[in-house]
Amino acid sequence: MLPAVFDLTALRALYASGTFTPQDLAAAVADRMAGADPAVFITPVTPEALRSAAAELMARAPEPNALPLWGVPFAVKDNIDVAGLPTTAACPAFTRRPEADAAVVARLKAAGALVIGKANLDQFATGLNGTRSPYGAPRSVFDAAHISGGSSSGSAVAVAAGLAAFSLGTDTAGSGRVPAAFNNLVGIKPTRGLLSTGGLVPACRSLDCISVFALTVGDAAAVRRIAEGFDPADPYSRVPAPRPLPAAPRLGVLAGSEREFHGDRETERLYDAATARAEALGCTLVPFDYAPFREAASLLYDGPWVAERLAAIKAFAGTHADAIDPAVRRIVESARAFTAVDAFEGQYRLAALRRRTEATWETVDALLLPTAPTTYTVAAMQADPIELNSRLGRYTNFANLLDCCAIAVPAGFRADGLPAGVTLVARAFQDEALAPLADALHRAAESGLGRARGAALPEDSRVPPAAEERLPVVVVGAHLSGMPLNRDLTALGGRLVRAARTAPDYRLYALPGTAPRKPGLVRQPGFAGPGLAVEVWSLDPAAFGRFAAAIPAPLGLGRITLEDGSAVPGFLCEAHAVAAAEEVTGFGGWRAYIAALG
Amino acid sequence: MLPAVFDLTALRALYASGTFTPQDLAAAVADRMAGADPAVFITPVTPEALRSAAAELMARAPEPNALPLWGVPFAVKDNIDVAGLPTTAACPAFTRRPEADAAVVARLKAAGALVIGKANLDQFATGLNGTRSPYGAPRSVFDAAHISGGSSSGSAVAVAAGLAAFSLGTDTAGSGRVPAAFNNLVGIKPTRGLLSTGGLVPACRSLDCISVFALTVGDAAAVRRIAEGFDPADPYSRVPAPRPLPAAPRLGVLAGSEREFHGDRETERLYDAATARAEALGCTLVPFDYAPFREAASLLYDGPWVAERLAAIKAFAGTHADAIDPAVRRIVESARAFTAVDAFEGQYRLAALRRRTEATWETVDALLLPTAPTTYTVAAMQADPIELNSRLGRYTNFANLLDCCAIAVPAGFRADGLPAGVTLVARAFQDEALAPLADALHRAAESGLGRARGAALPEDSRVPPAAEERLPVVVVGAHLSGMPLNRDLTALGGRLVRAARTAPDYRLYALPGTAPRKPGLVRQPGFAGPGLAVEVWSLDPAAFGRFAAAIPAPLGLGRITLEDGSAVPGFLCEAHAVAAAEEVTGFGGWRAYIAALG
Repeated sequence: MLPAVFDLTALRALYASGTFTPQDLAAAVADRMAGADPAVFITPVTPEALRSAAAELMARAPEPNALPLWGVPFAVKDNIDVAGLPTTAACPAFTRRPEADAAVVARLKAAGALVIGKANLDQFATGLNGTRSPYGAPRSVFDAAHISGGSSSGSAVAVAAGLAAFSLGTDTAGSGRVPAAFNNLVGIKPTRGLLSTGGLVPACRSLDCISVFALTVGDAAAVRRIAEGFDPADPYSRVPAPRPLPAAPRLGVLAGSEREFHGDRETERLYDAATARAEALGCTLVPFDYAPFREAASLLYDGPWVAERLAAIKAFAGTHADAIDPAVRRIVESARAFTAVDAFEGQYRLAALRRRTEATWETVDALLLPTAPTTYTVAAMQADPIELNSRLGRYTNFANLLDCCAIAVPAGFRADGLPAGVTLVARAFQDEALAPLADALHRAAESGLGRARGAALPEDSRVPPAAEERLPVVVVGAHLSGMPLNRDLTALGGRLVRAARTAPDYRLYALPGTAPRKPGLVRQPGFAGPGLAVEVWSLDPAAFGRFAAAIPAPLGLGRITLEDGSAVPGFLCEAHAVAAAEEVTGFGGWRAYIAALG
Repeated sequence: MLPAVFDLTALRALYASGTFTPQDLAAAVADRMAGADPAVFITPVTPEALRSAAAELMARAPEPNALPLWGVPFAVKDNIDVAGLPTTAACPAFTRRPEADAAVVARLKAAGALVIGKANLDQFATGLNGTRSPYGAPRSVFDAAHISGGSSSGSAVAVAAGLAAFSLGTDTAGSGRVPAAFNNLVGIKPTRGLLSTGGLVPACRSLDCISVFALTVGDAAAVRRIAEGFDPADPYSRVPAPRPLPAAPRLGVLAGSEREFHGDRETERLYDAATARAEALGCTLVPFDYAPFREAASLLYDGPWVAERLAAIKAFAGTHADAIDPAVRRIVESARAFTAVDAFEGQYRLAALRRRTEATWETVDALLLPTAPTTYTVAAMQADPIELNSRLGRYTNFANLLDCCAIAVPAGFRADGLPAGVTLVARAFQDEALAPLADALHRAAESGLGRARGAALPEDSRVPPAAEERLPVVVVGAHLSGMPLNRDLTALGGRLVRAARTAPDYRLYALPGTAPRKPGLVRQPGFAGPGLAVEVWSLDPAAFGRFAAAIPAPLGLGRITLEDGSAVPGFLCEAHAVAAAEEVTGFGGWRAYIAALG
């Protein structure tokens, strides 16, 4: 009995059982594709070709789960090259026939994943709604009257409908997030340059990202890690500089007149519920001024960046204007009105807005926003294609212009059964740091997996909190909280982890002639004392190094065994220095001894 | 007797003597200005105003040298605001009358420096030659027939002629470097965003830098440090992320057909002599392919970036085209031909070139280039103003487009008595790291200070090698060179500093039951042993922290007193662990003991 949707945990378990092979998967996927909305794929992989790819995989790596994406079916947005399949960008007259895989596709195939088809999209990835394609309009898996979102429309539906375990989208304005919201999916929009754009038909070359849709944050992050990597052939590829986030971050949330849902009270309610869940997870909610983000968002379609869309298809647009979707053509052709002066002035405006947003980043670690303020029927969208589309990007368009990463996660269902989503946004290269919170927020929403609204999220896909490299140090005397040298720790970013007690075989001495007064701790195996009250602090490695290197003789750092048996770096004293010192072990700790001095 | 030029060391010594005050300086500068080329300043500060500023300084900070630039005269390029003086940008019809100092000027005034005038420039900072100004063409201080270089023409001549101790220029294409070469000066072009551009008339807003001319690298770097600092009001201001350079860097040098001097054999000879001096200073010369840098350089005037120059004066150019210098107007008006598509395509081209130059940066730490390939007479320049100007920027124009910092230094004199210069170029935020080498290269050239061709460079302005934060650790046993745990140090980037010996009051024990074998070092004051052979290694702080935190009991890090009396962090052992251990002090060190085991 196959699951309704293919999350990675379920697939791996099926394969591990030994009774289900990639060949079986290929047959099952082919069956499901045959029954699916034909608008999802522009070029589906044929059942024969899919079985053949599965057979090749099994010949290459026979052991079940021998590769990280062994036999995992995925869909590729049809503006990304897959060798041997046409790349249409949803414009038949534009079609090219690539001989090589896009860099990202090659990485995923090497990891064992199987391409099931080239997915439909808003033509040239210009749109957020999914109706701008001559190959039809994919629909939300929850209601055939409603849009799937776009531009990565087919990619999202393929995962939500249980055809693919994950898919590649692209995200310049929000195309990797909005369709996630409308199909109860996770959408990761990586930091610009983290995934190579080699083999992609550009939308805005300076801003384009390849994105990942999956059923859980854990699945999407696993795929992103395999797909990412510096590509010297892509001028916009970047070497990552990962940055941590606090375990319980401060989250910027919408406030006042910036709360715009176009009358959609249900999506508004779901957004508020998501912020409440974030608070319950330990985050601090910080209402912030969305205005500079909104103004940056508006630059993407109303400013000179539309010229990048024209630059991407300049020759084609000159010779095949009639072959372009009317709404797309209207946007692309609007670029002709912009001069180079306009382009630079747009960049000046963006620089000023970025500076304004930096003030926000002083007060928050990440933003929690609605993914889209509302959704529309296909009919409504087609009746007012520019204005309604532009509303969908209100909370997404700024992200690449302001060099942010983002993870869109499900946020539950409106009363009418349509899903809504929220997006966590952080600064560049916090992709990894953002994942644990996104996962926790998704799990707390209890909204299922894609079309499987009642499914439980698998434990195996849980994203553990990011490990921050902190080194512990046991302090015994003048560095204890409130003691004279405690400032040396706090000035280095030290944090109190816990109070503790040493094992009983330590003796404590008051070192003569020290100012401020300092103790010396010495271990004597076999000695049965009371154990000594100490504190465990933590420092980052460089701070630990500076702290350790500055400790004067006769003190030093060794390993102190605590009463729980753990051996933690901490303050010890050279034995010669306590020979003539007063023993104060009986006080049970330095603080008690100092208090007794009065 | 005043020096011919005002370097900071000479000025400080004069003030420290107590017989010379800023009032005296003001009078001396006024005298020199009265006799100087009237083309140097557009708006000189009057003798009365200069004396008055000196009097105000003495009231504010009466002690000689009480401020870092106490009574130091400086000139300001006339596209940078000084409160109370007109800002013309060398275009009388454009003149504005600022009420506030530019951010950088305010910092320098606060440090005690005295503005002596607004210096001439190529109009709107568009040019590298110094002849494009209705206020006349400043001349090289070495030959009145030859150009001063530009666009910061007056700023450079003011320092070289002994009117100012330093000056502010700007540098978009090379305007802070080329005039340094033609006047035997140092020119620092900081990393973009290091100095605020608040109060600057833009040339190319996304690329403009305020730059510093001075007589020595030490002087220029001291001024730069005072002038720099993040400015939230400037959208292009950046928070510095300093990066080190190796003490003896690999220097990229021109090779083959990229060695273009337009037939100027003398400048070519001086360039080769400079590279030989760099090699004598310990640098490794690496011939590299200049082509991608040259192609990036050509984008600045031949590509869409000229639109930034139009954007900067758009309204003015529309209403006052006739008021603009013909050569400048030709350049600015050429911007009208560029569309927004051209602007983005130029940026794509730059991104591709930047990627190509990254291959060079894998093989070199910095570049050593001619500052300008040759120089020209004023008459020749005026006869062919676009072509000859463009030649001057061959080796400078790429720097801001490719996000580099640069320091131009004198490189000696041609046979005809005209100076030439060379420029060290490094990547962003290596401004500080580049200064020691630039200073050493300048000193080795023995070319004097500005017009004072025979002057010796003052010792006090020498720039010491950059200090790298390394923490020492004394290793005693299994971490010694060649011993089993030495790899723990080298894997962390540890470097051997020196062999050493402990003070005589340490005893060494072979710890029982350790694998690999480890010793324990314990101090016993009064003990008169042989001292023990140890090694001092160094680690960066984070590596030190990781190393220290990983040391298992009964070992730890304390302070070890060496035979020279210094107390250095190093390996000690808890006393209890040596109670039953074999003492091996008599071997004089762990290596000798291990060797004796055979």
